[in-house]
Amino acid sequence: MFEARNGILYVEDVAVTEIAKNVGTPVYITSKSLLERNLKAYRDAFKNSELLYAVKANNNLALMKIISRWDFGADVFSDGELYLSLIAGFDRRRILFNGNSKSEKDIEMGINAGVNFSVDSLDELESIYEIAKRDSKEVEIAFRVNPEIDPKTHPKIATGLKESKFGIPHDEVVKAYEIALKKERIKPIGIHCHIGSQILETSPFVEALNRMFDIAKKVEKLGVEFEFIDIGGGLGIDYEGKGSLTPKQLSEAILPVYERRLSELNSEPKLWLEPGRSIVGNTTILLTKVNAVKRAFKNFVAVDAGFNLLIRPAMYNAFHRVAVANKMEKEAEEVYTIVGPICESGDVLAKDRKLPKVEKGDLIAIFDAGAYGFAMSSQYNGRLRCAEVLVDGRRWWVVREAESYGDLVAKQRIPEWLF
Amino acid sequence: MFEARNGILYVEDVAVTEIAKNVGTPVYITSKSLLERNLKAYRDAFKNSELLYAVKANNNLALMKIISRWDFGADVFSDGELYLSLIAGFDRRRILFNGNSKSEKDIEMGINAGVNFSVDSLDELESIYEIAKRDSKEVEIAFRVNPEIDPKTHPKIATGLKESKFGIPHDEVVKAYEIALKKERIKPIGIHCHIGSQILETSPFVEALNRMFDIAKKVEKLGVEFEFIDIGGGLGIDYEGKGSLTPKQLSEAILPVYERRLSELNSEPKLWLEPGRSIVGNTTILLTKVNAVKRAFKNFVAVDAGFNLLIRPAMYNAFHRVAVANKMEKEAEEVYTIVGPICESGDVLAKDRKLPKVEKGDLIAIFDAGAYGFAMSSQYNGRLRCAEVLVDGRRWWVVREAESYGDLVAKQRIPEWLF
Repeated sequence: MFEARNGILYVEDVAVTEIAKNVGTPVYITSKSLLERNLKAYRDAFKNSELLYAVKANNNLALMKIISRWDFGADVFSDGELYLSLIAGFDRRRILFNGNSKSEKDIEMGINAGVNFSVDSLDELESIYEIAKRDSKEVEIAFRVNPEIDPKTHPKIATGLKESKFGIPHDEVVKAYEIALKKERIKPIGIHCHIGSQILETSPFVEALNRMFDIAKKVEKLGVEFEFIDIGGGLGIDYEGKGSLTPKQLSEAILPVYERRLSELNSEPKLWLEPGRSIVGNTTILLTKVNAVKRAFKNFVAVDAGFNLLIRPAMYNAFHRVAVANKMEKEAEEVYTIVGPICESGDVLAKDRKLPKVEKGDLIAIFDAGAYGFAMSSQYNGRLRCAEVLVDGRRWWVVREAESYGDLVAKQRIPEWLF
Repeated sequence: MFEARNGILYVEDVAVTEIAKNVGTPVYITSKSLLERNLKAYRDAFKNSELLYAVKANNNLALMKIISRWDFGADVFSDGELYLSLIAGFDRRRILFNGNSKSEKDIEMGINAGVNFSVDSLDELESIYEIAKRDSKEVEIAFRVNPEIDPKTHPKIATGLKESKFGIPHDEVVKAYEIALKKERIKPIGIHCHIGSQILETSPFVEALNRMFDIAKKVEKLGVEFEFIDIGGGLGIDYEGKGSLTPKQLSEAILPVYERRLSELNSEPKLWLEPGRSIVGNTTILLTKVNAVKRAFKNFVAVDAGFNLLIRPAMYNAFHRVAVANKMEKEAEEVYTIVGPICESGDVLAKDRKLPKVEKGDLIAIFDAGAYGFAMSSQYNGRLRCAEVLVDGRRWWVVREAESYGDLVAKQRIPEWLF
């Protein structure tokens, strides 16, 4: 869906130069066909499983609406993500409210919306219980288990290690179900874990699934009937062109284990998964314009997008492929380092890349920017957040408008005595 | 300005519990007296120097208005920061437009506002020249020099190392002045460097100043009359209670060098400095509420602020002092790790701190959050950005309102065919 035609990068049938000319830069551009291809791959691979889209990866409402139409549920992590999911049309019965630190407002909103909760601690269970009692509501829950599994990914996004902040230790969680069962209005119906993000092997998922079944067997004896076993998300994507797993490969690794171990239980929990990055990651580029090229210690290409818009390279040392979007036919001839306009040396988008000769005014495409891109954007350095565009064939729409200066001051209030 | 009274943390004469009750949490709270104390310390230490506030540290307009009244100029890094500086009343003749990647829009706005430019590359010089010519404007510039100096700070914020993206190599910058002098409408009047942030020794500043004079001597021979030598900012603050430098200590280290070396020049450039963190850093706390306490691998305290609001610990492994703001009289008795509500293991605000017994509903104050706190905040995980409060004696004002759900969708546009 991203290909070169006459030297120009196209997103489906639209030249990125056309979008840059009309919308300006920087701009995020998403291919609808690629999004739907990813959704179909998951749907085909997991016919009988529940797929909850991890909203944290990208909460653009147009994308979320498309995802909800493909029969996905939603994994939300805050009141704000729940709000967006309901607007985008996700079925509330297939929304799971995750999170290790839910405020009273989060819980109130989730209970009143009638979504399931993944409960991270006994303190949270108590908060949910109190609000459910006060508002005369029933709440269906799972516990988030810390499975103590190494997903072999970046430490900041490995979420199931023993020392991680998430979940109840796997050897203590049976006790938590016991406590929950004694509470009116609280009904445990699931078990949940999430081992990390950008995982490129199947074995950690198999290990996590086995651990969930081990615990579920013990918890069933307390009288819990499981409706779901949720092993979270985390399937990685192919940032570096070295290959990654497909949903099919994941399903081939875990569904046989799931089928086999199901026979050990009395209840028949459905398998739940929470893909995020692998749904949206490769659907989107960040298109940015070259403000200056400077030959110094390195050949620096200074562009108009920085870690204000895409923080992954600065924060996780992440790799994104790049291309000179208006010189796709040219041979790579020189090594460049692409840097943004932010006031920190860490604002480097891509290091030491061999590219065609880069000049002021060129357009640089940063690939695989659909997950944790705009979602983590800020107004750091007084930089405005950029537009998002959705492409479908020859047509395209601005699905998020760029900010204007007014957005830097909209919430600010200067006291009278300062005038 | 932050002290305990009857077990409660006060900001000047206001209990933080009063602010939490009225405004909610999380919330940033700034002491006006502490801000003015910092401003006075700089003014007293640098009577004849030009002090440019580094807007990137904190662009709250109420704070900026106070700073501009103390006779500060502004160091801006984008069109947005320039916009905010002009609103806050900074004198345009004392605004320096910095930045390594200025867009045409940045340059147009700066030229039309009549501010000085720090030029990062020859490509940028050319862009400025073209726009100045087109708009029939004169532009006064400095070049940003890469001085190749190690400021002994975090690598992501060391900005004057040889390999950094900023500035023109010090051994090539004379040539840049030569080129600039040949351009009509461009008038070089200064020289600029900035070696980094959170610097805790005076020697790197002295070294930078000497390097600027070395270059200025050579450049004078080309016919440039220097009006300023700007050695940037970067003075650190005392995050860890181990001591830091005062503006007075900095001035005692550099002013004698400045006076001595001034005699080597024909022109009489003023010394310019760009303090940011050391003006606002210690003036502000981030107040956050405990949603849950969990005894797992560690004693985790889950609060309602995460790296969406204060990214320094997650991004730079930064240390911030914390206190239980409603239990200031209690003895520390247990070791806790304070974590936020964000979906990443890296969302840890403070590791292994001995604190009084922490319970759900307690308030945690995170100190020294005035610089690179709200300025780097995001809506990651659909979390709303919080309010900012300014305290003056017994009075307080909301100087930035908290966001509402509407702010998550305000810029979003769902195409008709998706309904």
